[in-house]
Amino acid sequence: MATAPSVSYSITVRLEVPASGTAVSQLTTAVESSGGSVTGLDVTASGHEKLRIDVTVAASSTAHADEIVSNLRHIDGVSIGKVSDRTFLMHLGGKIEMQSKHPIRNRDDLSMIYTPGVARVCMAIAENPEDARRLTIKRNSVAVVTDGSAVLGLGNIGPKAALPVMEGKAALFKRFAGIDAWPLCLDTQDPDQIVEIVKAIAPGFAGINLEDISAPRCFEIEARLREALDIPVFHDDQHGTAIVVLAALTNALRCVGKEMDALRVVMSGAGAAGTAILKLLMAAGVKHAVVADIHGVVHAGREDLASGEAGPALRWIADNTNPEGVTGTLKEAVVGADVFIGVSAPNVLDGTDVARMADDAIVFALANPDPEVDPGVARETAAVVATGRSDFPNQINNVLVFPGVFRGLLDAQSRTVNTEMMLAAARALAGVVGDHELNPNYIIPSVFNDKVAGAVAGAVRDAARAQGPAVAAAGRGSVPA
Amino acid sequence: MATAPSVSYSITVRLEVPASGTAVSQLTTAVESSGGSVTGLDVTASGHEKLRIDVTVAASSTAHADEIVSNLRHIDGVSIGKVSDRTFLMHLGGKIEMQSKHPIRNRDDLSMIYTPGVARVCMAIAENPEDARRLTIKRNSVAVVTDGSAVLGLGNIGPKAALPVMEGKAALFKRFAGIDAWPLCLDTQDPDQIVEIVKAIAPGFAGINLEDISAPRCFEIEARLREALDIPVFHDDQHGTAIVVLAALTNALRCVGKEMDALRVVMSGAGAAGTAILKLLMAAGVKHAVVADIHGVVHAGREDLASGEAGPALRWIADNTNPEGVTGTLKEAVVGADVFIGVSAPNVLDGTDVARMADDAIVFALANPDPEVDPGVARETAAVVATGRSDFPNQINNVLVFPGVFRGLLDAQSRTVNTEMMLAAARALAGVVGDHELNPNYIIPSVFNDKVAGAVAGAVRDAARAQGPAVAAAGRGSVPA
Repeated sequence: MATAPSVSYSITVRLEVPASGTAVSQLTTAVESSGGSVTGLDVTASGHEKLRIDVTVAASSTAHADEIVSNLRHIDGVSIGKVSDRTFLMHLGGKIEMQSKHPIRNRDDLSMIYTPGVARVCMAIAENPEDARRLTIKRNSVAVVTDGSAVLGLGNIGPKAALPVMEGKAALFKRFAGIDAWPLCLDTQDPDQIVEIVKAIAPGFAGINLEDISAPRCFEIEARLREALDIPVFHDDQHGTAIVVLAALTNALRCVGKEMDALRVVMSGAGAAGTAILKLLMAAGVKHAVVADIHGVVHAGREDLASGEAGPALRWIADNTNPEGVTGTLKEAVVGADVFIGVSAPNVLDGTDVARMADDAIVFALANPDPEVDPGVARETAAVVATGRSDFPNQINNVLVFPGVFRGLLDAQSRTVNTEMMLAAARALAGVVGDHELNPNYIIPSVFNDKVAGAVAGAVRDAARAQGPAVAAAGRGSVPA
Repeated sequence: MATAPSVSYSITVRLEVPASGTAVSQLTTAVESSGGSVTGLDVTASGHEKLRIDVTVAASSTAHADEIVSNLRHIDGVSIGKVSDRTFLMHLGGKIEMQSKHPIRNRDDLSMIYTPGVARVCMAIAENPEDARRLTIKRNSVAVVTDGSAVLGLGNIGPKAALPVMEGKAALFKRFAGIDAWPLCLDTQDPDQIVEIVKAIAPGFAGINLEDISAPRCFEIEARLREALDIPVFHDDQHGTAIVVLAALTNALRCVGKEMDALRVVMSGAGAAGTAILKLLMAAGVKHAVVADIHGVVHAGREDLASGEAGPALRWIADNTNPEGVTGTLKEAVVGADVFIGVSAPNVLDGTDVARMADDAIVFALANPDPEVDPGVARETAAVVATGRSDFPNQINNVLVFPGVFRGLLDAQSRTVNTEMMLAAARALAGVVGDHELNPNYIIPSVFNDKVAGAVAGAVRDAARAQGPAVAAAGRGSVPA
């Protein structure tokens, strides 16, 4: 599957060309004949002899960008200057910053923001700790916590290399939900230490977003933190993905006219995302699910259920899915299935496999960047196809969920996040696509649809409040405007 | 010592008065006869019968503010509405926020800030971890870490109640040095845990500002973190204070014409600040120092040196000060002293004690809000007097130091902070006061003097770089603009 040119591989090439002659007109041709795409061409200096031109080009990969530069170099009379990479330029010095909400112009400002005035605010909180939600950043702050053990598709690259992702996540929290998130990239991968650290930093935050922590450690870390803390703890790789998948599946079923409890669902992948998707789909009514991992279908007879660190998670799957006791390969399991959901590896299915699914099949092939089956091929026989990619219809993207979920949790001053709230988030996200908009190529809204975050936030907030004062603060009145 | 009205106790009183009659003219009189000060009077609604007026008043204390409101209530025809407190209003929802540096307008922005573009930046850092200083927020980020055990003069009020101070500190870091600081208020006071936590969160920061951690735990925590981490760890209560004191003393000596190595210095207070001041003064050349705590002068014969948690710190003082073996009370020790430095408790000295000091005595009475001796009384016989208060000349204020110190450390990409850098910071701060400006009422610049942070930063940066590549990155070229 060829990758289209993308700004995520965008370079700006500074070059000099003769002022006369055809070199200028050859630039665009050279880029496009190399498969690149010119997105900008600026003359930054001009003289009688020479022009200096900045050409901005979208390529498909780093190697492709190098190839384009090489082709530009071969144009007669062109000399190549500095080549800069737009994505790296945006990362110089980091992507987020801290700002004071108030100007500090003079002694009066200082004496209210800092000493001596601040002392009275401190004492008010010491006397009534709940006032921290009113008088500090706590009410709107989320810690984005990772140990760098499972970053994107890159694996265990450690805390420093994970930081650009966490900064991006923080930027998205602000952009889509007005939340102040700060990254904490931990220099430990020991679950006990991670639990202890997150417990200790919790006083200054109203929520914890766990991110890119590998399975099965993520299950234990999240469960222990939820037990220990009075603020919600949400592992986005698990639950964010699960909520978007449930919303997309809800709308796919609207397209094909099937019911959740009658579906035969086959999943590929039993990691963090797979397990969370499975559990949320079952909470939403799915009764017949079969899960396969790299060793084939998970069933009660498998010998690896009792051993290895993934054992307990696989054991749960074996105990709660596959009631018919199916064994064998993924390819065997998908025959006759209504729904395939992949959160695993590229190209584990082909067009023949999809053709053997039930009529009006639904295929969510979410491995990134290369899906479990080519979506173009899948679409030849399946009724609805979704991927994790932005260059195909129906992108399953966590950005649709985590900002709104946390906005709702923070607005409700929720002490936890649970399945009821996640189901409400999925329903609200599905509901953003109206009946008049719904079709097999539009089961999920765009991340830039400005109704999404508000709809998800409202649903989560209401679901939290509905669970009463042990879970969330009552009505809006308790949150100062 | 009476406290003057201050905006840090500023209230806005909404009231209604008859449109005719003298009530309006009585408002200001009522406030001023109560000892308050009217700083604003806004008519916010006007009718034939009534005026609605917002009166903003500076008071000296909360009780004083209540008394002023009560006096306003007694004016004939006045009815009091909502009373709001300006300091609390400024704290609603917290004082700092997180911002994205780049707009996220469309898919192209998203694909560079987040996936898929961010993956290439992550891989670059995974291959060369030092690139985290170039491509992430690390290079400009400081963690402001507290356990809430010794907050301002308020004591052990815990992490949530400490948060307003840490937010204020973060706001000052930005205001005076362009640094992105984020508060981490820890829900533990165990030194082992604090060390472990700060070590773990270090990858995302270029410096650690420890704040309001009680002695003697702060000494151990700081020492262990400095040993473990490759970024500077600076306990501001100790070293920030010490640097300002040394700068102020340097300039006080310029006023009275004495030399550091000939001084007889007596200190009151052997806590975090006292110990750090003592050590830095000795590094700057002070040879004759005597320290008193609540039990009197610290000397080698004291029985509490070997016991209690403060033992090791007192033992160090006994071993390194008081070469003449002075014993007895603070009041006895100050007789004939050139310098008194108090970081202890209110009113431990009186005018008679100051009069018994040497000629051209220097008195730094830094206990807040009530100094060790009334500065007005001290000034009757002492040549130079400084306090921690903003309403007397020569305020010793850490805000003069910590922003510039960290700016310098970050600019040098320093791996540590040490005595040489602190001495350089103090020299630079003292040097901001020119010979033509220097006098006994101006030994230290205002916190709003815009030369301060740059002078301190430059001195610290150069001192760090002078220590070579094991300590700091070479020249400016290594920091992208």
